[in-house]
This record gives sequence, C-alpha cells and structure tokens, in this order.
Amino acid sequence: MALKTGKDYVESLKKLNTEIWAFGERIEDFTEHALLKPHINAAAVTYEMAHDPQFEDLVTATSHLTGEKISRFTHIHQSAEDLVKKVKMLRMIAQRTGTCFQRCVGFDGLNAMYSTTYEMDEALGTNYHERFKEHLKYLQENDLMSAGSMTDPKGDRSKKPSQQSDPDMYVRVVEKNDKGIIIRGAKAHQTGIINSHEMLIMPTVALSEEDKDYAVACAIPVDAEGVKHIFGRQSNDMRRLEGDIDCGNAKYGIVGGEALTVLEDVFVPWEKVFMCGESQFAGMLVERFASYHRQNYGGCKTGVSDIIIGATALAADYNGVAKASHVKDKVIEMIHLAETLYGGSIACSSEGRPTSSGSYFVDPLLANVVKQNVTRFIYEICRLSHDVAGGYIATIPSEQDLKHPEIGKYVEKYFKARDGVSTENRIRIGRLIENMTGGTALVESMHGAGSPQAQRVMLLRQGNLKHKTELAKNLAGIKE
Amino acid sequence: MALKTGKDYVESLKKLNTEIWAFGERIEDFTEHALLKPHINAAAVTYEMAHDPQFEDLVTATSHLTGEKISRFTHIHQSAEDLVKKVKMLRMIAQRTGTCFQRCVGFDGLNAMYSTTYEMDEALGTNYHERFKEHLKYLQENDLMSAGSMTDPKGDRSKKPSQQSDPDMYVRVVEKNDKGIIIRGAKAHQTGIINSHEMLIMPTVALSEEDKDYAVACAIPVDAEGVKHIFGRQSNDMRRLEGDIDCGNAKYGIVGGEALTVLEDVFVPWEKVFMCGESQFAGMLVERFASYHRQNYGGCKTGVSDIIIGATALAADYNGVAKASHVKDKVIEMIHLAETLYGGSIACSSEGRPTSSGSYFVDPLLANVVKQNVTRFIYEICRLSHDVAGGYIATIPSEQDLKHPEIGKYVEKYFKARDGVSTENRIRIGRLIENMTGGTALVESMHGAGSPQAQRVMLLRQGNLKHKTELAKNLAGIKE
Amino acid sequence: MALKTGKDYVESLKKLNTEIWAFGERIEDFTEHALLKPHINAAAVTYEMAHDPQFEDLVTATSHLTGEKISRFTHIHQSAEDLVKKVKMLRMIAQRTGTCFQRCVGFDGLNAMYSTTYEMDEALGTNYHERFKEHLKYLQENDLMSAGSMTDPKGDRSKKPSQQSDPDMYVRVVEKNDKGIIIRGAKAHQTGIINSHEMLIMPTVALSEEDKDYAVACAIPVDAEGVKHIFGRQSNDMRRLEGDIDCGNAKYGIVGGEALTVLEDVFVPWEKVFMCGESQFAGMLVERFASYHRQNYGGCKTGVSDIIIGATALAADYNGVAKASHVKDKVIEMIHLAETLYGGSIACSSEGRPTSSGSYFVDPLLANVVKQNVTRFIYEICRLSHDVAGGYIATIPSEQDLKHPEIGKYVEKYFKARDGVSTENRIRIGRLIENMTGGTALVESMHGAGSPQAQRVMLLRQGNLKHKTELAKNLAGIKE
Amino acid sequence: MALKTGKDYVESLKKLNTEIWAFGERIEDFTEHALLKPHINAAAVTYEMAHDPQFEDLVTATSHLTGEKISRFTHIHQSAEDLVKKVKMLRMIAQRTGTCFQRCVGFDGLNAMYSTTYEMDEALGTNYHERFKEHLKYLQENDLMSAGSMTDPKGDRSKKPSQQSDPDMYVRVVEKNDKGIIIRGAKAHQTGIINSHEMLIMPTVALSEEDKDYAVACAIPVDAEGVKHIFGRQSNDMRRLEGDIDCGNAKYGIVGGEALTVLEDVFVPWEKVFMCGESQFAGMLVERFASYHRQNYGGCKTGVSDIIIGATALAADYNGVAKASHVKDKVIEMIHLAETLYGGSIACSSEGRPTSSGSYFVDPLLANVVKQNVTRFIYEICRLSHDVAGGYIATIPSEQDLKHPEIGKYVEKYFKARDGVSTENRIRIGRLIENMTGGTALVESMHGAGSPQAQRVMLLRQGNLKHKTELAKNLAGIKE
Repeated sequence: MALKTGKDYVESLKKLNTEIWAFGERIEDFTEHALLKPHINAAAVTYEMAHDPQFEDLVTATSHLTGEKISRFTHIHQSAEDLVKKVKMLRMIAQRTGTCFQRCVGFDGLNAMYSTTYEMDEALGTNYHERFKEHLKYLQENDLMSAGSMTDPKGDRSKKPSQQSDPDMYVRVVEKNDKGIIIRGAKAHQTGIINSHEMLIMPTVALSEEDKDYAVACAIPVDAEGVKHIFGRQSNDMRRLEGDIDCGNAKYGIVGGEALTVLEDVFVPWEKVFMCGESQFAGMLVERFASYHRQNYGGCKTGVSDIIIGATALAADYNGVAKASHVKDKVIEMIHLAETLYGGSIACSSEGRPTSSGSYFVDPLLANVVKQNVTRFIYEICRLSHDVAGGYIATIPSEQDLKHPEIGKYVEKYFKARDGVSTENRIRIGRLIENMTGGTALVESMHGAGSPQAQRVMLLRQGNLKHKTELAKNLAGIKE
Repeated sequence: MALKTGKDYVESLKKLNTEIWAFGERIEDFTEHALLKPHINAAAVTYEMAHDPQFEDLVTATSHLTGEKISRFTHIHQSAEDLVKKVKMLRMIAQRTGTCFQRCVGFDGLNAMYSTTYEMDEALGTNYHERFKEHLKYLQENDLMSAGSMTDPKGDRSKKPSQQSDPDMYVRVVEKNDKGIIIRGAKAHQTGIINSHEMLIMPTVALSEEDKDYAVACAIPVDAEGVKHIFGRQSNDMRRLEGDIDCGNAKYGIVGGEALTVLEDVFVPWEKVFMCGESQFAGMLVERFASYHRQNYGGCKTGVSDIIIGATALAADYNGVAKASHVKDKVIEMIHLAETLYGGSIACSSEGRPTSSGSYFVDPLLANVVKQNVTRFIYEICRLSHDVAGGYIATIPSEQDLKHPEIGKYVEKYFKARDGVSTENRIRIGRLIENMTGGTALVESMHGAGSPQAQRVMLLRQGNLKHKTELAKNLAGIKE
Repeated sequence: MALKTGKDYVESLKKLNTEIWAFGERIEDFTEHALLKPHINAAAVTYEMAHDPQFEDLVTATSHLTGEKISRFTHIHQSAEDLVKKVKMLRMIAQRTGTCFQRCVGFDGLNAMYSTTYEMDEALGTNYHERFKEHLKYLQENDLMSAGSMTDPKGDRSKKPSQQSDPDMYVRVVEKNDKGIIIRGAKAHQTGIINSHEMLIMPTVALSEEDKDYAVACAIPVDAEGVKHIFGRQSNDMRRLEGDIDCGNAKYGIVGGEALTVLEDVFVPWEKVFMCGESQFAGMLVERFASYHRQNYGGCKTGVSDIIIGATALAADYNGVAKASHVKDKVIEMIHLAETLYGGSIACSSEGRPTSSGSYFVDPLLANVVKQNVTRFIYEICRLSHDVAGGYIATIPSEQDLKHPEIGKYVEKYFKARDGVSTENRIRIGRLIENMTGGTALVESMHGAGSPQAQRVMLLRQGNLKHKTELAKNLAGIKE
Repeated sequence: MALKTGKDYVESLKKLNTEIWAFGERIEDFTEHALLKPHINAAAVTYEMAHDPQFEDLVTATSHLTGEKISRFTHIHQSAEDLVKKVKMLRMIAQRTGTCFQRCVGFDGLNAMYSTTYEMDEALGTNYHERFKEHLKYLQENDLMSAGSMTDPKGDRSKKPSQQSDPDMYVRVVEKNDKGIIIRGAKAHQTGIINSHEMLIMPTVALSEEDKDYAVACAIPVDAEGVKHIFGRQSNDMRRLEGDIDCGNAKYGIVGGEALTVLEDVFVPWEKVFMCGESQFAGMLVERFASYHRQNYGGCKTGVSDIIIGATALAADYNGVAKASHVKDKVIEMIHLAETLYGGSIACSSEGRPTSSGSYFVDPLLANVVKQNVTRFIYEICRLSHDVAGGYIATIPSEQDLKHPEIGKYVEKYFKARDGVSTENRIRIGRLIENMTGGTALVESMHGAGSPQAQRVMLLRQGNLKHKTELAKNLAGIKE
C-alpha cells in the first residue's frame, strides 16, 4: 500500500469514530474543528515530507519485514545510522512545524516493544514477538499513526499500582478469556492520540509480582469500544477560535495536543496482546521506551529552538538592535544551547548498539543526558528570547484592535519599530515568540519522556561509578 | 479626606470617563468587565489593606506635607525605614493578590519627580518643585492612584527621539501657550493605567539638547481629552470570560493589565507641568525612577514567588511525594532564590540615603542588582515549580469537562491523586501554577522596570571599577 | 587598657608559648616564619585599622559592659546598625588584605555564647552568663584575638558522637572536679588559631541526652598545657619560602591559615566553663554561631572579590582588550555577583532583631541565603576572572626566571603585552589572580561557616512553608 | 620501524639536546628531573597503551601513506569512525593519567596541516602537501611526538602582528634563502613541548596581506639551534620536590607541562616549510586546528572528570555519607555534566565529513559547542567535588606531619573517618581531589584550544542564523 499523503492521512481520520471531548462538548467532526486542527496539521507534515524528494532519505525507510518503502515512523531501527537519521528527521520536521508533531511517541513504543517481546520470548518461551511483528506489518502497510500510550494516572505517587485505593489508577487486565483480554483504566497526557489511528498500550513503571495484573501491553484502535478521549487545555488555546495572528503559529499550534484517554473495559483480542502478566519485563519495556523517547528531544526541541532563535533575531532586527553586542551574544548563547542538545541526540544515536533482536538501541546513558539538558536549556533559551525580543511581546493588543477601523491606526503607528518593517510583521513575530516560549510548551520540555528525576535515576544506574572509583584509587595510590 | 476603601476606589473609577479599547471594542462599564475586573480587584487590595490594623503601619504613612495619614503609595520616603517598609508592604500585598497590583509604578514616579524637581529648581531657578508638591497634596488628599507613565513606543531603538522617521515615537511638546502645553505621542506597556485616576508622564531616556522637545514631565487625568487606552493581551486572558477554575487566580488575575495609551494632542495646564525642555535633567529623572522601581522587584516578586512555592509544595503533597528528598531539595532551592531577591530589596532600601530635597533614595547599585537577579531567578523558580508539580499542569481538561454530567466522572476519577485530596482541589492548584509560571508573567519579570541590559549599564557605572583596580594594584605590589 | 596596634599584637604573640607544627617540624619563632607570617600580617590589619581615623567608626565600638572603646571584634552587637557595621568592616578589611583575616570566627563565637548563656541561665538557673561576661571583659580589656573553635573531626559522619568507634572524635569532658574540667579531643580547620591568644570551644552539632559529655563550651589560652597545633597545607604554600612575586599576595597570603588543634586532656577552670552537660542548648549555640558566621561571607568575600574584579579588569587592560564588549560584560557580571552577596549580608543584618539578652541576632533565614550563594558565586567570579585575564596566568615562568641574567630578557620580551605596561606588572597581576582564584581559596568559600547542605536544612526550617501553602490555597479557592 | 614503548620514548628523549630552563636554572637531565618527570610519564602512556591488546584498536591505526601500523597520534583521520576513536582514546588515556598527556596538540596540527596544504596547492599551485606528507611519514615511521606550536605571545591584543611595537610578538620570517628560511619570535603555552621530539609551527590568527611575513608554518626539532624552552609554573609544582602523597597524582601530575619556547633566528630548510607568505590560508589552518582541538575536550576532560567523580564518591564513602540523598544527587550531576561533554565530542566526530584531501574533518559547529561547555562544566564539576568531598581537602597537614614520629599519631587519629578506611587513604583521595580541582587545571579547561570568545565567534559564523530567520518568518506568516 502506498505511503499516505497529508491529505490521505486527514481523510483516513475522518473515517474513524473517535470519541473526543473538549470544553464540555463531544467534538463531532474533529478534523475540521479549530481547536484540534493545528495538531492534525502538524502530524500531517510527517506524511507530507515522505513525498518530498529532498527529505525522502530521512523520512522513509525500507521495512526489514517486507522490503517495502515505509514511513520511518513505523520503522524498526536496523543500524546506528537509522538512529541518527531519526534525530535529523525530527529536527527537520520541527523546523517546519515549530511544534510537536506527535508521531514519535508511537514510533518509540514500536521499537521498545520489538526488542522487549523478542527478549521475553527468548527468556520465557512466549510468542509475543511474532504477534507483534504482524501488528507492525499492519501499521507499516497502512502507514498508520500509532500513539505510544504509557503514562498511567498514577494516583498516589508514593504507592504501587496494587496499593492504590482505586485499583484503576494504572491500566490493568480485569478479565481474560479465550478470545482475548479486557482492560480498564486510563492513559494520561496522551500526545497526538486524538489524531492517531492506533494506540500501543504499555505499562508505565517497573512492576513486581504482586502487580502482575498491571503488566499489560497491547494494541487497540483509538476508536475501539469503551475508549473516550478528553482533551487537555493548553496555554492560549482559545485564541484558535478567534483568528490568525494572535495564535503565533496558527497553522500548527504550539504543542502536541494531549488527552486523557479513558479505557472502560476495552476488549483486546489475543493477537494484539504483547505482554500479559510478565511483570518482570515491564521495567525493560519502560526503560527501552524512555531511552528511545529521550533521544528525540535534542532533535525536535532543537528544531523548535531553531525557530525561536530565528524569531528572536528577527525581532531584534525589527527593533533596530540586531548589531548590539549584547544581543548578538545572547543569540549565540541560544545557538550554543540548542546545538548542545542536538549533539547529545546525535551522540546517543551514533553510539547505538544492536539488541539481541537485531534492532538498534540508543546509548541509554547519553539519551538520558539529552533529556536532562532539555529540562534546563529550553527554559534558558526561552528566557533569552524574552530578553532579546523585548517587553512588547507581553502587551500587544489583539488582532481585532490592529485591524479595527477606528483604533487600528494607533496600533499601527505606535507598535511600529524600524523603517522598512511593517507593524503587522513585527506583531506576528512577537506573537510567535510569545506563544512558543511560555506555558504548556515549557512544561512539555520538562515532563515529556519522563520527569527529570527519572533521568537522574538512570544516570546513576548507567554511570558506572564503581569503575570510576577504581580509576581514582589507582591514581591516588590507594591499596585496600 | 479619608483613605478610600476598596469599594470607594471602584466607585471612584466608575465616575471617570476613561476610554478603553480591547478586542476591537470600546469597553463601556469597565469596572464590571470580566476581562479587566481582576486587575481592578488587585489594585483595590492596596486600598483595602490600609484599613487592616495588622498592616496599617506598612500600608499607610504620615504625609510630610500635611501631617495627615495617607496611603504609603502616595508617600514621599522620609527615611531608610520608609524604603524598607515599602518592600515589606509590596511582598505582603503580593502574597495576597498573587499578581501585580500596579500601584507602585506611580508611587515610584512621584518619588523620582519629587527629588528631581527639587534639584532642577536648585540648578536652574525654576519653580517645578512647588508645583509638584501641590499635585502631590492633591493625590494624597484624594487617595488617588497615579500611573507612572514613562515608556515611549521608541520606534527604531538605534535612533534618538528626534532622529525617528515618525517624530511621535516619543511623547513630545507640540505647542506651548500661556495656559499650558499640548503633548502628542503615546506611552506603551502602561501597567494599571486603565484603573488609575491620574497619569504622571515622564521621559523614558536621558536626552540631549536636540531632543529638548521630548523633555516633558507632567500630570493628566487618565480620562483627559485626547487620551485613549488600548488594552494589551495576556496569556490565557480569554479564560476570564469562561469561568473560575481555569483562570488559576480568578479574583486577581496573573499580571497587571497593561495598555498602550495614546496621547493625541492633550492639553496640560502649566500647574501640572514639571519639566518642559530641561533635557539635561531627563537622565536623572529616569535613573531615579528606574532605581526606585527596581527596588520593588524583590518585594512584589518575592510575594508572588511565595505563592508559587506554596502551591508547588502543595501539588507535591497532593501527589503523595512531599517527602521525596529531591522534591524537598527543589522547594528549598525555590525558597533560596526568592529570599535572595528579597534580601536584595531590603539591602538597597536599608542602605538608602537622603537626597538634597530630604526625600530618601535607594542605593542605586544594589537596586539594579535586585532587578538583574529577578530576570533570572523568577524563571528558575517557575522551572522548578514545573518540575515538582508534575506534567499534569499542562494537560488538565477544562472546567466544563470536570463539571460535565457525562464525562466529569472520568476527570474526577483519573485526575485524583492521594487519598484525602479532592480532584477539584488538585486541579485548582495545578491551574494556579500553570497560570502563574508562564507567558506574560515571565516577560513581566524580564522587562518590567527596564530590560536586563539597562541594569548592566548601571552596574558598570555604579561599580567603581577604578577603586577596585587600585586595591588590586596595591596588593600585587604594582607601582606605576 | 589601650587598643593594640598591629605591632603590639605581634609582640603579644611572641610572648605566648604556642606549640605549632608544620612540614614535620616544630616551628619555633612562629611570628617570624615565612610560612605563617602572611596570616599574622592579615590578622594584624584588624588591629591596625582600629587606629585609622577614617575607619574608626567601623572597627571600634563602645563596650556595653565597661563603656570603654574596644575593638569591634570583641563587641557584643547592641543594634541592627552594629550588625551592618560588622559587614562593612569585613568588606573594608578584606579589600586591604585580599584574604581571610581570621578574627571574625571568635567574634561570632562570643556573640553566640553571649545570648545562649543568657537563655540557658533563664531556663536552667545556671550561672554561665555572668562567668562569660567576665571572660568577655578580659578579652575586651586586653584586646585579645579569640579563635572560634567549633568544628570537631567528626569521624564517621553518619554517626553521633557517642556512637563513634573512637570516643574522642568530638571534644568531650573526661573528668570534672572542684577546680574545673578536663577535656579531650581535637578541633579541626581552626582558622587563625596559631596567631590567636585564646580559643573559645563550642560543640559542633545539636546534641541529645546520650551525648551530654560532648556538650561542653569553654575558653582556654592557645598555649595551654596539652594543646598542640598542626598546621594545614594550602595551595602554593611553599612559594612563600621562595620569594615575592609568585605568591601573588605576598604580604597577606591567600587564605586564613588553618590548623588541627589537638586537646590532650586539657584542664579548664570552672570560671572559664560556659556549658557543661546541657546538651539541649548545644543546637541553639551552633545555630546562633552559624548564622552570625554566615552573615560575614557577603562582607569579607565581597571585599576579596573586589580585588579579583579589579585585578581582572587590570589584566584585560594590560592585554589591550579592556574595551572589548564581552570583556566589559563579564566584568559587569562579576560586579553583579559580588554585590548580590553584599546585599544579602546587609539585609540579614539590617533585619537583625534583639535576643532576650539584649544582644542583636541576624535574620537567620537571610544569613543562610548569603552563605549558600557564596558557595556558588565565588566559583563563578573566579571562572570569569580566568576567562577575562587570559591563559597566561597558568603558564608564567618563576620569578627566578624573570630575573635571571641570561633568560630573564626572554621572559621580559615575550610576556609583554600592551605598550606602557611593564612585564613585571603584568606578571604580578597574573600571579595575584592565579593565587586568589584557585585551590584552597575556593574550598574555603564552599565549606567555611558550614557546608551547603547545612544551609539548606536551615532554609527549609526557616522558610515557613506552611504559611506559603495557606496563601496559595487561598488564591486557588481551595477549601479543605 | 616499530612502535615505541614508553621506555623507548623516554630513551629517545634522553638523546635530544633540548634546552630547558625552570626556576632560574638550566635543567640538565630533564627526563630524571622531579619537576618534569610526571609530564613525561603522562606522555609515555600514549606509547605504552599502543602495546596493550585491549586498546590497540583505539591507540593505533593503519597509515594511509605506508599501510604500516602506526600510533593513532600520528594518523590522518580517514573516516568519521577514526574521529570517534580519537575521542574514545583520549578519554581512555585520561582515565589512566588523570591529567593532560599532551600528545593531541601535535596530532591536531598534523591533521589541520594535511588538508590545508592540500587546498593551498589546489588553489595556488604550490607544492606544500607533498612536502608535508614526507614530514608526516618521518613522524609515523619514527613514532615521534610532535608539539603543535600555534599560540604566539600576541603583545597588545588589540593590534595585528605588524602593528605591534615589537615585531617579534608573532613568529615571523626574517630571512629567506635558497636553503630555507630563518624565523624569529616565540610560541607561548607550549603544552608538552619539553618532552616532544618535534614542533609544528603554525600561525595563530587569520592574517591579511600586510601580515604575510607572519604566515609561516614549518617543522623543526625541539632541540634545533636557537630554540630555548622556559618552563611555566603550575599550582603546587614544588610539591613534586617534596614527596609523594601531597602531589595527589604523583606519577602523572596535574596538568600538561607548558613552556614558553623562544625561537631566536632558527633556520628551517625548505623541505620542512609548509606555508610561507600565503596569508590568505592562515585563517583556514587556524580554524581547522582549533576545531580538531576543541573536539578533544569532551574526550580527555571527561576522562579526567571520571577520576574526579570517582574520587569524590570515594571521599563521601570514606566520610560515611555515600548514601545521603544530596550526596548522590551531586554525584549524579557530575556524571551528567561529564557525559554531556563526552556526547558533544562524539557528535562532532560522528558528524565528521571528508575534506577535499580525503582526510576527515569534525563538524566545526558541534566541536566549538563542546569546548564552550568545557569552559563551564569543568568548573561546576570541581565545585561539586569540593562540596561533596568536604572541607578537609583544604586543611590536611603535610605528608611529613602524617609520618612524623611525634605528631603523626594525632594526624592519624583525627583525620580518620569511618571504620575500615585508613587515614592515609582518606588523605590520599583528598590530595587527589585538591590537586585536580583547582588552579592551573581549571585555567587549562578555560583557555586550552582557545578562549571562550573564540568559540562564540565560530558559533555565530556556523550557526546559520539566516536560515533560522527564514523558518521563523514562514511559520509566523511573514511575507516581505
């Protein structure tokens, strides 16, 4: 089956019966709804770019299962080079959307599941890997968007799944029969799920024996019976209902739309179940997924930062201060921070190593390093952007005022900066910066792919401190 | 005349004929408009607290002109202790509003004008100081809110006022006659102006002889003929039109509302003119105002940070992780940063010194240090807040969803955290954090009271580098 | 008795029989020994400045016990103004010595002991306060330097004093009789002790009942029987034995000399015992001392930083790059960081409050904030100094090479920078920077007055988190 | 000819007639001199490891000129993989020496010269590349250590070479004849030169036509007539003359020894001249060298950091606090910072691209990013090390005191920490940390491979800001 175009993708969504709620209403034709459309547009770029000859090598790949040309977003990494291409693809697309295009979550879920099912089968004699390959082929052949559904609501964070007052705070198996299983619970912060075709459900923490009911991984369509999506608010989301300029990035939005996805006793046939009770493998699956997902952030967030940097330099130029030495220095700092992130993603990719399944896995230490830096540097990039762009980004009147027959002339006159730059353009760049550098976009940099502390736990585990102390003893002349 | 209550204050605003525009419309009864009301509520607290016996000593003072009890916001500092009380008052009020209450801008303008007119008269034999004292008495006796109107639109930032293509990019005198003067231009980013009674117009930069038409300071009512206010957008401003919870701080809002104030050939009688052509004193006025205004930021922003810190600790507690060592450590860091800011404001105040007019001026070096730290630490405080509070603050569904008869139960169930905490309360604290830590609030910390580079110029000027090099030479044994 | 001059001070040290060891040798005439002399010179400045009319008001005070003029270093703070003067005195002296002048440790010990003994007597009916006042009078009248001896060796840091394998890891009472007590143990990191007259011994941690033998505070002469001082090494200490230039600050050295002081069954008469078994007051004494001592660091370290900043600016000037914008910007940053520290010390002082004894105590929250910032900013100041001064500071040949008849000319020729600056002066300023910005001086900024974690514990305890959460609940509309 | 062993290397140095001065004396048998020996030992490790089967693949390579097995330090990179191996080799050796092993400077000089001579010949029809290849073969076959000699003394940094008062402040050609050229001047901060065989002289800045006499690159033996080396001081250098423990890293020292190398009318035969007057190629040569050299710092400095991290964790363990959460968190932070540097070096290497000569060049943007981070992170790593290790590292008595018959027992007793750890070992690890984290080692991290500002200039040039502004305009809907 051919790779979908952006248009094909939107058409395919229209055919789904996805149940989406927002602002207290069931959203009917969600592909045409102003609130959701930018997110769909952003995801559509992942389809469009596959047809751009300039970027074909990045955005498509050859399936190791079928030998067919597929979207890289459904590909299992076959080499370190594949991992590097992933990062470059993410940066490139982010440079065109300026926001999250959502499709990497599922991509990472597929890769994590691929090697984990292989190792489960090796260890336990189960047959999950073959099942999973069939599912993968289905996604590749139909060029589907699969959401990676990991994060559970988690309730009281100091308690394990089975210790919660409400047993549904983590997704669990409530029934098994010969056709399949029935699951209950919810997945939170589901990026891109409202415009996905499928969701790949995975546990969210390492589990022990007493939590085996929570050790469940499987695939279901986003419009399966019992599945409801409640859309989360974002900063300035209502501006989309107003007009164009004040959105900043009207076409693609500011973040990847996220939803709470409720799973109310959803049936999953056995052929779509990839883990069911093997609690000892939950930790591996989570760790694989998290490392792949943390790899991304020096790709996509660097692409987003490229936009912020360009917009900031432009705002300074519009203000007439592009050549001030402190302005140049701050722009350099922004570039420096962004490229540090990018370098980190390249490194954890080029240092990728094969798993026993043959698929490639990133260097987990370096991947965690990248994400940890993202939780700091994006904030600093945004801070510098505010500094350089100037205070006007926080006090611009609305688009309606700019275009108003009576007072528009005052906005035009007094928001004008240097000669040769239209007031509207100056406002446009200000709005782009305002929207890209605050609120939800920052929080996404912090908590996407796991909170900072999750990375620190991994850094300690992967940092081989024992080896380092041996080296130190050796030089210090310590014999014990 | 008695000190106004909060209610008196709102009543007095209703009597004004202020011309306010927002979202393409002239706002008629602005004191009742959902968009503006939180800003008015916040300013009203400055009136209410004057009647609270617990805080009377901070919020009121004795006029050195009349001996009457007045609002501290119209007081001329008579001692270093007055300067310290100002900081404590600002922190205390910010702890109750969680946002900018706007009245310090005019307060600082009055104090800057007071000593500058005194020194102008001393040097030039003019009579501005007496005129200004009359105006001050008028404000004190009527307990009026006066906006400090300094920032001009500035056009091309690399050019002086008279070099601009459009001569109106800085406010200027276009006519003088025996009754008064006529001014034209605009003032940008006018915090609290729409709910002020008066505005105190001042130049925004040091000026030289060729820019003497721009050397103008004067007072006018906010509803004078020819004055129009165009309200600026803020992050999530439209949520005020929706309901309560999603605003975070529904009563007081997130920032001090700001407007572009157009001055279209506004007449000012001579008795309200406090500078007219004395370009050599523009720099002093700006520097005095800026230093007083930078003093504030370790007061009000620390008060605001107290809320953010408390909300963040509460969110962690609701999540069940209040005792995790990394959570405690981050909360400590937030306290540390906030108190560093507070200490800075206390220091520049307690080190205040009398001017030749008898009024007290902050230590300008230390005042600039405070503001410079604000441009960094508030961002870090917000970053830490995001880290600790958790990713949920970026994906909470709307209030309508929470309260929806059909899907509200899912939001209730799956946004619940530890036992004993209602989901609504958890959402409320998340919304408070979301709104206080992003977007416009951050930009205000950056650019309020002047951009970071403005402080750095002052730091070099005030840092007495020559003395430091002499000390170093001495120790190094260098004789030249 | 008159205030000692610097010369009197050195003479008085010669009369002591202090047992000092260094580099494996008993140091006989320690006041003339090249290794120790700079430390003695630095302490002598605290005596000299008392006779300088310009600084008399800072460096002397009026005894509240005798009404006599005394050194401020033996004064009990009688007002917040006294606390502020302390900070200004410390900065001023540090600007003249460029290093630690050691006398504040005892100063802080005296003030901590003063109010603690008062409160002990109030609570327990003991008579320590009167005894202590007698001791204080003795110090004031003889203008003695008293070391503040708090830090115990501590052994295994995870165990309490009485849990240690070796019971002597904290100083303890091993015998009591009718004449006095006998103590055993050691005090570590004793700043300035080798050139003090007296030491004031205090416990180093809060203690519980089972550690009551360790609850001992008392005064002994530094040359009491059983007291031995073993001098600690510092970075580049051997350069003092070589010559002048390579020391950087040849006259005063780089840090305050520190020693391990062994107390081998030392007898203390009852009139010099100020705590003996009252374990419940150990914590208060430690906390008082620590807060007073942390107050200092924005005084003395800012004075030291003033030298580093001046030297760095001078090095840049010598290199011909004083006007480069990045150089100016970094110097500004150094000033900014230094003044942030200073502001912190001023604030915790001006916010000082009376204790029940009448003496004044700093604001403990703000005092801990200062020290915490010192553990970061001094490192950054030094880093910026390295950046601006240039790499030559790490590769300068020795003074002997500079002055060598054969190769001196090459050093002269090739270490020359801009015209008008002698090579020797350029080397001198490089050596000053090299010595002031590395090694022991940095560690002293980190651990002097307690390690960073000790401050963080205090920040949490003093930060009133409960009040902050109440404020947040209020704004968020949370009712519980 | 076989690869030298460490011993062969030292023997080969003995045969040279290198003129070395230090502390005012000509050092005769420099390979046996306590001051220099650690530097020689460190460089010798680069020879020893070539014979270790475990690391052979990293430390040796196959010459593309002769097909022989050679030391990687004389290899021309033939692939991105070669660039990655370089980084891994540097980290691995630094983990064994704990300090600079000096041989990368020449390695980078050779690679920079290789592609630059090729491109010069392409553009100008000169014959430098063939000449240079002969020189390279000579180095490879004899396994020689070649110093990279770039940095000129530079005099007044605001002036070009030919504008200096003293024309010798940059190395220049003072005579040309048919046999060769005569050069005069000096090279500063020459890392490892005293124990190299050869030096490769290169210009230190981009040059214009009027500075063509300064456009000279060539090779000379370190003991050529007219060459004198004056050794620079380092922190604590004199401790090497005392004993073992106090040096910290007695065998290998703390930094790479550096010298001022005077070139007093040194003759260079034409076959060793690789640039002579082609000022337009000086910039390329400098940029190539600088980028290769900046690539290294995430290799060697990460290796050095591994030692610091291990030593710090060990010191905490000895103190009994290894499990304190704040200690673990700081160790994690150190790992995080170190791995960020490493990732940067891997990235600029794996992204390496072929030059027209066929040799591989690093990604220059990413290489500059690495070094910029080193100028910050190494300081922070050292700061954290001080924090965690504890204040004792700044006050340990000398080795003579520890071993003294009379007072040694006190040092033993009171510097003891937890049970099971000898005091000597605790002191050893303290000394290692003290020496590795201060003074010269920090300055080397700052200025080695160029000062921070040099990297920032490159970041702006390589950052493609124009492309970023286009991307931003596109998203903001700006048409111009």
